[in-house]
Amino acid sequence: MDSSIGENIRLTIFGQSHSPAVGMTLEGLPAGCPVDQDALIRFLARRAPGRNAWSTARREEDLPEFLSGLAAEKTCGVPLTAVIRNRDTRSGDYAALKETPRPGHADYTAEIKYRGYQDYAGGGHFSGRLTAPLCIAGGICLQLLEREGIQIYARIASIGNIEDEGELTCSLADRDFPVVSPERGTEMLALIAERRAQGDSVGGVVECVAVGLPVGLGGPLFGGMESRIAALVFGIPAVKGVEFGDGFKVSRLSGSENNDPFRIRDGRVVTETNHCGGILGGITDGMPLVFRVAFKPTPSIALPQRSIRLTSMENAEMVVTGRHDPCVVPRAVPCVEAAAAIALYDAWLGRKKEE
Amino acid sequence: MDSSIGENIRLTIFGQSHSPAVGMTLEGLPAGCPVDQDALIRFLARRAPGRNAWSTARREEDLPEFLSGLAAEKTCGVPLTAVIRNRDTRSGDYAALKETPRPGHADYTAEIKYRGYQDYAGGGHFSGRLTAPLCIAGGICLQLLEREGIQIYARIASIGNIEDEGELTCSLADRDFPVVSPERGTEMLALIAERRAQGDSVGGVVECVAVGLPVGLGGPLFGGMESRIAALVFGIPAVKGVEFGDGFKVSRLSGSENNDPFRIRDGRVVTETNHCGGILGGITDGMPLVFRVAFKPTPSIALPQRSIRLTSMENAEMVVTGRHDPCVVPRAVPCVEAAAAIALYDAWLGRKKEE
Amino acid sequence: MDSSIGENIRLTIFGQSHSPAVGMTLEGLPAGCPVDQDALIRFLARRAPGRNAWSTARREEDLPEFLSGLAAEKTCGVPLTAVIRNRDTRSGDYAALKETPRPGHADYTAEIKYRGYQDYAGGGHFSGRLTAPLCIAGGICLQLLEREGIQIYARIASIGNIEDEGELTCSLADRDFPVVSPERGTEMLALIAERRAQGDSVGGVVECVAVGLPVGLGGPLFGGMESRIAALVFGIPAVKGVEFGDGFKVSRLSGSENNDPFRIRDGRVVTETNHCGGILGGITDGMPLVFRVAFKPTPSIALPQRSIRLTSMENAEMVVTGRHDPCVVPRAVPCVEAAAAIALYDAWLGRKKEE
Amino acid sequence: MDSSIGENIRLTIFGQSHSPAVGMTLEGLPAGCPVDQDALIRFLARRAPGRNAWSTARREEDLPEFLSGLAAEKTCGVPLTAVIRNRDTRSGDYAALKETPRPGHADYTAEIKYRGYQDYAGGGHFSGRLTAPLCIAGGICLQLLEREGIQIYARIASIGNIEDEGELTCSLADRDFPVVSPERGTEMLALIAERRAQGDSVGGVVECVAVGLPVGLGGPLFGGMESRIAALVFGIPAVKGVEFGDGFKVSRLSGSENNDPFRIRDGRVVTETNHCGGILGGITDGMPLVFRVAFKPTPSIALPQRSIRLTSMENAEMVVTGRHDPCVVPRAVPCVEAAAAIALYDAWLGRKKEE
Repeated sequence: MDSSIGENIRLTIFGQSHSPAVGMTLEGLPAGCPVDQDALIRFLARRAPGRNAWSTARREEDLPEFLSGLAAEKTCGVPLTAVIRNRDTRSGDYAALKETPRPGHADYTAEIKYRGYQDYAGGGHFSGRLTAPLCIAGGICLQLLEREGIQIYARIASIGNIEDEGELTCSLADRDFPVVSPERGTEMLALIAERRAQGDSVGGVVECVAVGLPVGLGGPLFGGMESRIAALVFGIPAVKGVEFGDGFKVSRLSGSENNDPFRIRDGRVVTETNHCGGILGGITDGMPLVFRVAFKPTPSIALPQRSIRLTSMENAEMVVTGRHDPCVVPRAVPCVEAAAAIALYDAWLGRKKEE
Repeated sequence: MDSSIGENIRLTIFGQSHSPAVGMTLEGLPAGCPVDQDALIRFLARRAPGRNAWSTARREEDLPEFLSGLAAEKTCGVPLTAVIRNRDTRSGDYAALKETPRPGHADYTAEIKYRGYQDYAGGGHFSGRLTAPLCIAGGICLQLLEREGIQIYARIASIGNIEDEGELTCSLADRDFPVVSPERGTEMLALIAERRAQGDSVGGVVECVAVGLPVGLGGPLFGGMESRIAALVFGIPAVKGVEFGDGFKVSRLSGSENNDPFRIRDGRVVTETNHCGGILGGITDGMPLVFRVAFKPTPSIALPQRSIRLTSMENAEMVVTGRHDPCVVPRAVPCVEAAAAIALYDAWLGRKKEE
Repeated sequence: MDSSIGENIRLTIFGQSHSPAVGMTLEGLPAGCPVDQDALIRFLARRAPGRNAWSTARREEDLPEFLSGLAAEKTCGVPLTAVIRNRDTRSGDYAALKETPRPGHADYTAEIKYRGYQDYAGGGHFSGRLTAPLCIAGGICLQLLEREGIQIYARIASIGNIEDEGELTCSLADRDFPVVSPERGTEMLALIAERRAQGDSVGGVVECVAVGLPVGLGGPLFGGMESRIAALVFGIPAVKGVEFGDGFKVSRLSGSENNDPFRIRDGRVVTETNHCGGILGGITDGMPLVFRVAFKPTPSIALPQRSIRLTSMENAEMVVTGRHDPCVVPRAVPCVEAAAAIALYDAWLGRKKEE
Repeated sequence: MDSSIGENIRLTIFGQSHSPAVGMTLEGLPAGCPVDQDALIRFLARRAPGRNAWSTARREEDLPEFLSGLAAEKTCGVPLTAVIRNRDTRSGDYAALKETPRPGHADYTAEIKYRGYQDYAGGGHFSGRLTAPLCIAGGICLQLLEREGIQIYARIASIGNIEDEGELTCSLADRDFPVVSPERGTEMLALIAERRAQGDSVGGVVECVAVGLPVGLGGPLFGGMESRIAALVFGIPAVKGVEFGDGFKVSRLSGSENNDPFRIRDGRVVTETNHCGGILGGITDGMPLVFRVAFKPTPSIALPQRSIRLTSMENAEMVVTGRHDPCVVPRAVPCVEAAAAIALYDAWLGRKKEE
């Protein structure tokens, strides 16, 4: 099923950009896990729209309502469902897109796949708004992992050609613009502002790290942590690439450069380097799990673009109206953390069966 | 389940490097599909070991025996199982690895995950040999897709720092070394030979293209073709990155550069460019689907390496013996095609339910 | 996952008896299917409480709100989620049950399974109220099957020792008390009233028939229509047995009595008799699919019962208070139809992949 | 997928009656579990053909070969695959059945479902022979459950109208004909012999008990032990009904008769009676889990039967040749135990995630 994922927990995401609500169901959570709703709301606020210069003007409070799965603020062992109402919707903005698809969007492919019956308003189920329920699920998994000593944090690794500097060693959740180097952050913000002024947009890369992981999460073949994380992360709209550890760079190395030597340090097994990003044979090795995610520039730009008219099958010019982020990357940072948390908590739960 | 994948067809891979056999079961194939066993054997030969200067000296005939699922050379609608016997196994080579894990391998992580009960001989279920059943499944899917007018072909895009030149526009299945530019191929082979002579290894990138796809394969969120393909491709040992279309490069572009304008050409909808790699909103748009896969250098090198002794928890030196490829990339080319074929045939079958 | 089922469509049921809402998500519905909400509400009314002498005094409007999956009253191809708010809840009635479990209920087993964290109010996720979302899903599937010429209808086959008479040949949806013989219906109602007056309850059997089925739904082994229907029907609380065709009776027959001879009639293949209940080898044969479902008497009775105190581990007497049906069978009739419809529509959709 | 089942372990059954082999893959078994192959072979011998007066004359050694998943006689944590070669096949016996389907068999429905491409020899994937791999999987699960103090045993509860007497309180695995009462067993054997002499067949009922179960296996809705066991048991050919505890009989009772009072006995929670068959709300309550399975009489009888000719669409007479059991029930006893063991071990493993 397209909108579901997971083996030991199962996440289902539902809703369209302009349907009454978006939401998610998470099955398989053990009973008795506390869910800190305040912490969850703070986490969701990091991806909520309408708060910053670089995000869409659409405003939603993004307060999740829990319909089921909790008793006395703790999970009660049955499906946990939470929804967020869609309120600030302006469907009129989108009526023309069924006929003239936006370049870089799912308008055309959804029109064909659903034979004209898709909900095109606001991008329907393909909207970035569907990352809100992803973040509900991920925010909960982050809390559950934290109780096991596992932390996940991500940063903006680059916007356009501007790369962040320094190593990511702690959560940047309290920063408006999550980069390690404030100087580079300032440059990135300037680039985003410039593209916005041009009616254009820009892409970027998010880097994510998970620390405190036990050895043994994941498995061979399609159960590898790379497969599990990638399947989730590619579910975030606009993602075009995922790499683990040194990623594409390792294709240029020799084995003697890339192999991470094992060492004993303080009575624990570690690797001297971490080119592999904390995963060997699909299984966590206890070192930080590191991956990077490439985001394309927002396809919704204000500049005129070439498209077509589907009914008459003619070429056409079009201008995308509506409210859009000039760069999705800052708001994507918690989404990547959420995706990683879901994959890792699923694997963590699976590990319990093996013991 | 780690070793299974798929929704409309379900692939299960079984076997260890030195168990009596490796094999696979493919469920969900419609009845009445011809399986050309000669063509399949030719396909498998492309990833078989022991044939070239750049591959391990282990030789296996790699002839699949079909145990079930066929009647009169056609699928009969029930699970199709094929196995390949393991014959040329030398388990003695591997006995020491349980105690002293090879850097860059699953030895250590599997030891912990399976609490000492893993089958360490030859890498067990983590061995590259498990790509043989992947190629059986993929080879069959390739045949089924071809009957629908869909072709999939891959090439070596780079080995180390040497990149292939020219566009990949047709199958290179008949070439010993699948590159577009013979000059670059010669350089790559020289680099592989050099690394082998040094007792070292080298990584590379495989590029894969699927043409003839209808519009509408895939779906939103985790049903996107990127998620589906990535989950399969990361199941191939040594893969550390997957990118679609222009991939990581698009993170540096602006929307006006990256958006692919729609056009009408010969009465069909096309895009002028194909930065998106034939996928919009997770769904095929009818243009060539393009992705690239980063492979790390073979971790099994002949040079001495730093490792540990697990029982005494001490640092140790070790040398990997046994027979290994100095570069897995050439043999990985059909594996990537196979992975893509399984993902695409699964999506193609899913599409039938929607019509 | 306990609360999910289905292969080609996937149903997830969420909610507790006293949580903010109960609801369901149905994934995999093709786009463009009209959902007649009025017809659905009429269907749901058949299982709604508080309307008859034989049902609980709890009243709920049971009006589903669709949160997602529809556009212009038709499915739009993405997950369809509908919820029913819980309004008339009186949680105070249930506080003692955590300590003193009701005989015949899940109170004790849920207490252990969820280590004390279950939502015990109103039976939580084990409440008969969870059949409301089952009926939303089933009601939609019934509509979709009807468009394919398939009809499903059930009746009360027996209450206590009183058996209905006559063959079930058409829908009884418009009857308050769905039996073929009004005389037997009157007797059954009298028995229910008698048991209620005694502070007791009574069980019964529901028979369900599906007509208009094509040949070929279902499959071998666990894909058989028996497995698919049974897995759903046993999900209805209080079900203790399911049998197909002549069911347990065939265990007493000889092959020559039980085999249904094939005949050609009006150019179609039929069977002369239908002992097999329209299923051969797990696959529909085009004859009416017939099955029967045994319901136990409602365990919540007004009479004093023997139970225990869990904290002190002592024997105890208890009396169940709260509002309960003296017989669940009448309200279970649409639930059984719903379960059958979900299983059959799933199989019907799966059939499309084979063609 | 029709031939796969399970959530925490996943069983896939493959093979046709006359294909090179039948077999099974079991995924999800923890590493380090000993597999006693001798005990497994003894278990398989109980369902093997050709050993008794009441079974088909086809003889197969039914010795499983393990292709993968074991290292040093223990599970190694990866898919366990075992196959049994088909040797004594006489495909010629079956050639006519494609044209003239046997009443009571899958011949006709499979012909339509697979559009003529099914493997009809020996019943293909619908053959009772496919219960051999079911018994491999079940036999292994039985061993694993036994190590946890759980035992499962079944008996012939009735053949035709002859019912066994006495309670089933221990394994009858060492009896040729597993009944509690030898007198009734003798009568049953006489009835089977009589039916065989008549060229006819007879059905029966198998009763199965699991003891030593912890409280808490299973779950609400479709995760109930009834759903899980029924989905597996209906996968055994010829099963037409499944009931738990007192089953259909409870439909005739009042709540005060049927509710099982809780009591404290020896410091443990028990129920005074066990009408519910050890399952409350889908979850085991620690009492013996009891269920009964109705088997139809073998459809393959020697008497002339009415059928049709599919190509000419005419009525026809036919006589089934080949070798067949006059009663499948004795050989079905270990199959029912196997099905129960798979469902229970799956639930047992799932329980580990909750703790």
